[in-house]
Amino acid sequence: MRGKVLTPTKRIRRTPFSSKVEDKVKGVTVYNHMILPTIFKDAEEDCRHLKSEVQVWDVSVQRQVEIVGKDAEKLLGILTPRCVKNMNPNKCLYAPMVNQEGGMINDPVVLRIDEDRYWISIADSDVLLWVSGIAAALKLNVKVIEPSVAPLAIQGPKSRILMKRIFGNEMDYFSYFDLRKLRFGKHTLNVARTGWSKQGGFEIYVEGTEYAHDLWEELFSNGKDLNIRPGCPNQIERIESGLLSYGSDMTIKNSPFECGLGRFCEIDANSTCIGFEALENIAKQGPSKVLRYFDIKGERVPFCHDHWPIFNSKKVGEVTSGIFSSEFNTNVGIGIVEFDYAVEGTKLQVLIDNKLRDAFIRERPFNPKLKPFM
Amino acid sequence: MRGKVLTPTKRIRRTPFSSKVEDKVKGVTVYNHMILPTIFKDAEEDCRHLKSEVQVWDVSVQRQVEIVGKDAEKLLGILTPRCVKNMNPNKCLYAPMVNQEGGMINDPVVLRIDEDRYWISIADSDVLLWVSGIAAALKLNVKVIEPSVAPLAIQGPKSRILMKRIFGNEMDYFSYFDLRKLRFGKHTLNVARTGWSKQGGFEIYVEGTEYAHDLWEELFSNGKDLNIRPGCPNQIERIESGLLSYGSDMTIKNSPFECGLGRFCEIDANSTCIGFEALENIAKQGPSKVLRYFDIKGERVPFCHDHWPIFNSKKVGEVTSGIFSSEFNTNVGIGIVEFDYAVEGTKLQVLIDNKLRDAFIRERPFNPKLKPFM
Repeated sequence: MRGKVLTPTKRIRRTPFSSKVEDKVKGVTVYNHMILPTIFKDAEEDCRHLKSEVQVWDVSVQRQVEIVGKDAEKLLGILTPRCVKNMNPNKCLYAPMVNQEGGMINDPVVLRIDEDRYWISIADSDVLLWVSGIAAALKLNVKVIEPSVAPLAIQGPKSRILMKRIFGNEMDYFSYFDLRKLRFGKHTLNVARTGWSKQGGFEIYVEGTEYAHDLWEELFSNGKDLNIRPGCPNQIERIESGLLSYGSDMTIKNSPFECGLGRFCEIDANSTCIGFEALENIAKQGPSKVLRYFDIKGERVPFCHDHWPIFNSKKVGEVTSGIFSSEFNTNVGIGIVEFDYAVEGTKLQVLIDNKLRDAFIRERPFNPKLKPFM
Repeated sequence: MRGKVLTPTKRIRRTPFSSKVEDKVKGVTVYNHMILPTIFKDAEEDCRHLKSEVQVWDVSVQRQVEIVGKDAEKLLGILTPRCVKNMNPNKCLYAPMVNQEGGMINDPVVLRIDEDRYWISIADSDVLLWVSGIAAALKLNVKVIEPSVAPLAIQGPKSRILMKRIFGNEMDYFSYFDLRKLRFGKHTLNVARTGWSKQGGFEIYVEGTEYAHDLWEELFSNGKDLNIRPGCPNQIERIESGLLSYGSDMTIKNSPFECGLGRFCEIDANSTCIGFEALENIAKQGPSKVLRYFDIKGERVPFCHDHWPIFNSKKVGEVTSGIFSSEFNTNVGIGIVEFDYAVEGTKLQVLIDNKLRDAFIRERPFNPKLKPFM
């Protein structure tokens, strides 16, 4: 359904920052029952700006599932095949979660906020229900809640300059996925060097609404000469960079191995997780299909509002995200394809709007590396 | 965020019927990660038509969570405080589901499709994750899946006339919430006398996509002289009728007792459900606040995209849904208010767009009764 207006309802929540951006937003989506902007000027101009300046993204939709209590670490070990024993509180952990069959439930980032307190920073599915259902069934000594946390992502090559003006020179010593507690006035904020772009940046976990607007104003008043703008995850940039979208590029029907996330399945170190046996089997046999990147020829592709089938005489896969990239002057895509056809440079056909187009497999994303800060 | 266009993405799924209606749809929402139309002509005209004619609603978003296997009944008893022992396969069961604290997880309708096979027909939250998490943790002998089922709702006073033309005179003998297996060509369909309006009607659980388009065409070709139209759940009609929307009128923070759903908590007959102790405590003490209907004075209210606080000097509750009704010539609302102020006719104030308005409590919906068929 293209060009349809989203009808307002309380069921789809606004964020603490909605009032700051709504007059500038041209397109939106719904993510974790909440509004997420998708377009400010247009996707291409938003992308160019993100690659050269600094943007503040309201990613409140990245809800936190908090696990707190004596059994918190034990529960976390049941939820993910990653090893979460004695987790480093100064590092975020990308931790795919799977069901009994090894199917992806979500691909969150986990933060250890305190001794027995973790936040699971989630993609688009109700992880709260998955986690609290398991905790209730096993009668674990934990509380599982959705705290009032609204992350802001500061993204782009000038993001470190901006962050230093507010949080000081400590920002120079953040490695990728580092997590620190920083002061903002009388408040302590969790800040990580993360974000859903490869243009560099940070995520600030804004708690409650007390200082949310002050922080927003502080960011924008300090960023004027940096050409700061409100922004949002950009589909062009994230597909070029090979950042996966749960619900599009992977679903509950895919194993982590199929999605190129096999290295996060530390099944030798963590045998407690749900899906352990299924993952062990898949790891032994190897997945029959894998995630790849695509260079899709021909004119600009339309919105990928469904999958695009991939053919080599017979159907051999599906493109799940695709968009035209000015930087690479081609249509860039992400999809899953049978293992035999997954080799770099393999020529296949993709069916888009009833027309077959040539497409070439890439084993790595168009933009494989995190960009350095200015 | 008013008047914003929803950006297409695979993550928000289309339905088997999207192509049938998309050129006629003016507004949409997202429900269970899927597109749901909200407006065809305009909400008032859609409402008038629904109350006098027959509409076909694509409610594919009403996803099914299928539980199948030896422990299916046992699992169902863990999920809901309703008594689900020896469930009648010819009746649908409205079965609120709660967490350990007695907070609402969802308010689905349960169908017994086969001996050890149930469908949970859900409102807007990932019940699949809640149910499969519990099943996995308890190692129950069940499979929990989301089958390929896309319900169509046939709603309005002429719906029975239409259904008789396709399924025969058996349609005369359907009581409210009856569930039957009916023939359509070589296919067997599950059909219930249910639907999210009080204008009368049925829901057809369309399985797969084999006959979906044939059935759609059959309905529309048989309905021409009945002034048939594609439609969707109508906010005016559902608020007049007191039909609750999960996520708006109740959330995980509300108990069934607060939402007027106490009669569905058969805790004397089912002590196996998660949240049993919490519900027993609430039942003993009585809830401190309850769901009520509101007659809100003054000009037409705007979209209720957040809650509207209710005051009696201090804050005593929240309106969660509200809209202007032509039939009742006032603004009709649903909300939750402290018990002491919940008596019929009590005058309170509701804060809408920074202005206080008078509002009067109603203990029953404006349209409390199911309308008879023509």
